[in-house]
Amino acid sequence: MLKVHLQFDPEPEQVSRLAALLDPSIRLTVGEHPHPADFEILVHGLPTREDLLASPHLHTVIVPWAGPPLETLDLLKEFPQIAVHNLPYNSGPTAEMAIALLLAAAKMIIPYDQNFRRHQWGPADASLQSCLLLEGKTALILGYGRVGRRVANACRGLGMKVWGIRRRPDPQEQDEVYGIDSLHDLLPRAALLIICIPHTHETTGLIGERELALLPKEAVLVNVARGDIVVEAALYESLRERRIFAAAIDVWYRYPDRLLRGKGEPVPPSNFPFQELENVVMSPHRAGWSPETEELRILYLSRVLNAAAKNLPMPYRIDPNRGY
Amino acid sequence: MLKVHLQFDPEPEQVSRLAALLDPSIRLTVGEHPHPADFEILVHGLPTREDLLASPHLHTVIVPWAGPPLETLDLLKEFPQIAVHNLPYNSGPTAEMAIALLLAAAKMIIPYDQNFRRHQWGPADASLQSCLLLEGKTALILGYGRVGRRVANACRGLGMKVWGIRRRPDPQEQDEVYGIDSLHDLLPRAALLIICIPHTHETTGLIGERELALLPKEAVLVNVARGDIVVEAALYESLRERRIFAAAIDVWYRYPDRLLRGKGEPVPPSNFPFQELENVVMSPHRAGWSPETEELRILYLSRVLNAAAKNLPMPYRIDPNRGY
Repeated sequence: MLKVHLQFDPEPEQVSRLAALLDPSIRLTVGEHPHPADFEILVHGLPTREDLLASPHLHTVIVPWAGPPLETLDLLKEFPQIAVHNLPYNSGPTAEMAIALLLAAAKMIIPYDQNFRRHQWGPADASLQSCLLLEGKTALILGYGRVGRRVANACRGLGMKVWGIRRRPDPQEQDEVYGIDSLHDLLPRAALLIICIPHTHETTGLIGERELALLPKEAVLVNVARGDIVVEAALYESLRERRIFAAAIDVWYRYPDRLLRGKGEPVPPSNFPFQELENVVMSPHRAGWSPETEELRILYLSRVLNAAAKNLPMPYRIDPNRGY
Repeated sequence: MLKVHLQFDPEPEQVSRLAALLDPSIRLTVGEHPHPADFEILVHGLPTREDLLASPHLHTVIVPWAGPPLETLDLLKEFPQIAVHNLPYNSGPTAEMAIALLLAAAKMIIPYDQNFRRHQWGPADASLQSCLLLEGKTALILGYGRVGRRVANACRGLGMKVWGIRRRPDPQEQDEVYGIDSLHDLLPRAALLIICIPHTHETTGLIGERELALLPKEAVLVNVARGDIVVEAALYESLRERRIFAAAIDVWYRYPDRLLRGKGEPVPPSNFPFQELENVVMSPHRAGWSPETEELRILYLSRVLNAAAKNLPMPYRIDPNRGY
């Protein structure tokens, strides 16, 4: 009997779907802590210290998201006896959305659409260059992992050259992959900077004023990782002053809490008025979502749990010290 | 001495650029008909019968665009002694824009951006499905030529399967390529229909009510070829009634004349209010344009003219009866 407790709130139908996928030896509980708290695996994205201490048998925490929050990782560093796993179920949708956002920014799809809906055939703002041609240019993919490799495939399909950056470059990769220490050398030669690196203490503020200034004037920046990897004020200023061509941003600096989001209260995603800029594509943290999202999340979760039930190596383990 | 007359209106700097690229044996005239009209090659997109009869030595007409107008082709059918060439200089930009438009439509980039600029994190219209996942689905490329093959590369890079349709399928192609008679069989299994086929009498109205009805409810249609290939009313109705997921349209049914366009007078691109629909991406016939456009057009034109000057086979010849 493997005791698993789900302390996130999936729809009831997803819980049934999960139950149907699980090995019969798994006993699943859902909701607030069960009494007695004797679970061995806790599925929770933002566990508290109390959650981690509640059950003496707890050996694994599964964060049911692709990107574990820094606070979760920091807390779990204090519990080295607890293994941490995430669920990278949405690499496909995220990579597709990264390409969609990138092309929308590079081709100024939104200002032209909006102006054309008023039956104006010309550019909305004649001072904006109307589009970039990508073929033959170089995409720099910051975070050449599950998402980054898919983004790389799509960029190659568009006739681009690809450079990847990851902590430990592997010489076997299909593209030229460099370590993070090459960032400043590569930025001036990149037409696109696509950010899909995990959020860790090391990547917080990795792209700041200096890095943005190193990009060519015709560069496009895409962020589908986490807002805090790019310095908010520096990003806003470089777009407002058109020091880069455009940006497409899916991940932000201020988030509504769940309740406000449900109520439809407007919550600005930044302290800066990005909404006033024509050279930005704004996306409300939806890159990883797809109609299949919840189904895939449950499928990935079942893989980890079933492996545990069968004493097989559990996939998608991460190191809280590295953050991925 | 090869006498070439340019009867389209490039910028003076482009004429200088062209002159610099041309074989010294070419004598170039620009503007209204020279007197005497003794040119052998006429560069003109919409020549009149009088233009074609003006010079007894005329043996070639070069249409300085990628897509020759039907009326030009029809007129030139009456002059079988005159060879017709076009300038397919913008396949790269057109294919890139097709992919940008396609992804903007499939991912509902515009309604989410517009709503998010008002600080709403949810969908603008909750009754609209928020996005499609493309990986693993099939793109049907109607017109598997210079543009279509590039679109195919990009679709494969996104993890899609590709079917092409062209008049004469070549078994050597990288994708499965079918004849036009397979259209009705393929439509119900296509997630995307990307139209980049030349406009001819045969392709006018090729996608009508019946064809749109054959597409799955989750299909996206992209047209970067010519408006008249898709029946206007049928397209509008299928979008309004959400019988397909979305469309991205770069080519239209009504165009401003050059004068109005310059003045910024609003000119609706259709008799139907496409601008009221959220499931359409509207693009003002700009797919083929890029910052490099005019330079490339001049480069392609110089290739045809220099070949003629050296008595080499002239590239980009088209058959006015076929239309490409």
